[in-house]
Amino acid sequence: MTATKPALPADAAGGLETVRVITETLRIVTDKRLELYNLTEKVAEVLKRHDIKEGMVLLSSLHTTLALFVNEWQAALLHDVKAMLEKVVSPRDDWRHNDPDHSDCDRHNAHSHLQATLLGHALSVSVTKGKLVLGQFQAIIAAELDGPRNRDLAIQIIGR
Amino acid sequence: MTATKPALPADAAGGLETVRVITETLRIVTDKRLELYNLTEKVAEVLKRHDIKEGMVLLSSLHTTLALFVNEWQAALLHDVKAMLEKVVSPRDDWRHNDPDHSDCDRHNAHSHLQATLLGHALSVSVTKGKLVLGQFQAIIAAELDGPRNRDLAIQIIGR
Amino acid sequence: MTATKPALPADAAGGLETVRVITETLRIVTDKRLELYNLTEKVAEVLKRHDIKEGMVLLSSLHTTLALFVNEWQAALLHDVKAMLEKVVSPRDDWRHNDPDHSDCDRHNAHSHLQATLLGHALSVSVTKGKLVLGQFQAIIAAELDGPRNRDLAIQIIGR
Repeated sequence: MTATKPALPADAAGGLETVRVITETLRIVTDKRLELYNLTEKVAEVLKRHDIKEGMVLLSSLHTTLALFVNEWQAALLHDVKAMLEKVVSPRDDWRHNDPDHSDCDRHNAHSHLQATLLGHALSVSVTKGKLVLGQFQAIIAAELDGPRNRDLAIQIIGR
Repeated sequence: MTATKPALPADAAGGLETVRVITETLRIVTDKRLELYNLTEKVAEVLKRHDIKEGMVLLSSLHTTLALFVNEWQAALLHDVKAMLEKVVSPRDDWRHNDPDHSDCDRHNAHSHLQATLLGHALSVSVTKGKLVLGQFQAIIAAELDGPRNRDLAIQIIGR
Repeated sequence: MTATKPALPADAAGGLETVRVITETLRIVTDKRLELYNLTEKVAEVLKRHDIKEGMVLLSSLHTTLALFVNEWQAALLHDVKAMLEKVVSPRDDWRHNDPDHSDCDRHNAHSHLQATLLGHALSVSVTKGKLVLGQFQAIIAAELDGPRNRDLAIQIIGR
């Protein structure tokens, strides 16, 4: 089924310059309880500002109810992602994290934490020729699972 | 429950050689609507060709309906992974991405996108002594969720 | 919704020192069939021992039924994570991996593998100023999905 294809240009391979490590915080302000936000351009801007040509970006949520994933930024599909999350982990189920006998959290957000564990708190994207390596239909998406809130993400670039 | 065990040989630690960044494309040709493909050997071959001894591989799908994960390559289990995906996110549910009133996508593939968000678009594997750091039963597996198609993955090696 | 905020101190950005790659094994001994373990301090200790200030940690399970995720370490929520896993992928469903006609695995652990594919086998955490970049409520958690067993994780630090 497979064939290796070194399709990227030769100057994308190798290179002996010193690798840099850059870490910043990206703040987003969310406006709904459950909502998705397209971070692709924000991440691309940070990358461009530091002029890293070859390397990777590690983007991490600093919150337990804010998750990250890569998929298509299309209104109908975004609706489906939210419907799927509520279906796979329902806010209406009896979760212990929501029970005052067992938890001092009064946000009724157990499902938000659980949905976040399925999506993941961080993602990595390669960088080559100064650009994020994403397919035509791929976007970097943050899933606010218990907003609205101010949310911080760590964005780290390792490269040269 | 835990004890730190620096079990890997001493020469796997430290090292001051310059780190390289290599990015290539790996093409796979899939042959079914829903199928799994073992990429472990393909990734190992790219690693071997570049002679990186210590570092990591970041493998990324460039598509929104092709996902990646690490687990066991066993026929019965692969059957179960596919069954589980169709159970957790059913192709038969009413997804808006499949509705011509809301979407110009006519592939009826909402579930493929949604399954991909749960599995993840990328994975990282450490490299030490020139080998992928994988357990005895671990394989790098691509999940084609809306094939058959030609699929490209970015494979990036950061190391020395 | 977004505003870029370079909130981390200036000395966290840039830096031209040589990047090191360190790989070790972390052993944990689990004591239940399904249980969660907080690895945050163990990972922080390895990081501290190597005195890496800027970079990332890649933590990987070397097993197909031990997964990793980042979320809150709270007893009620940990109970819910386990309940959610058993609900999304039930041990009581008919999985082929558990069927002696199709599989030589007699651990009846298909659901453990499947739950692991949803959580993920590895995670990356940024490092800045010598610390793991985690939010106030975030912990690095290992999910034992088919214990009790001795389990090895690869911990790799790339940084300077």
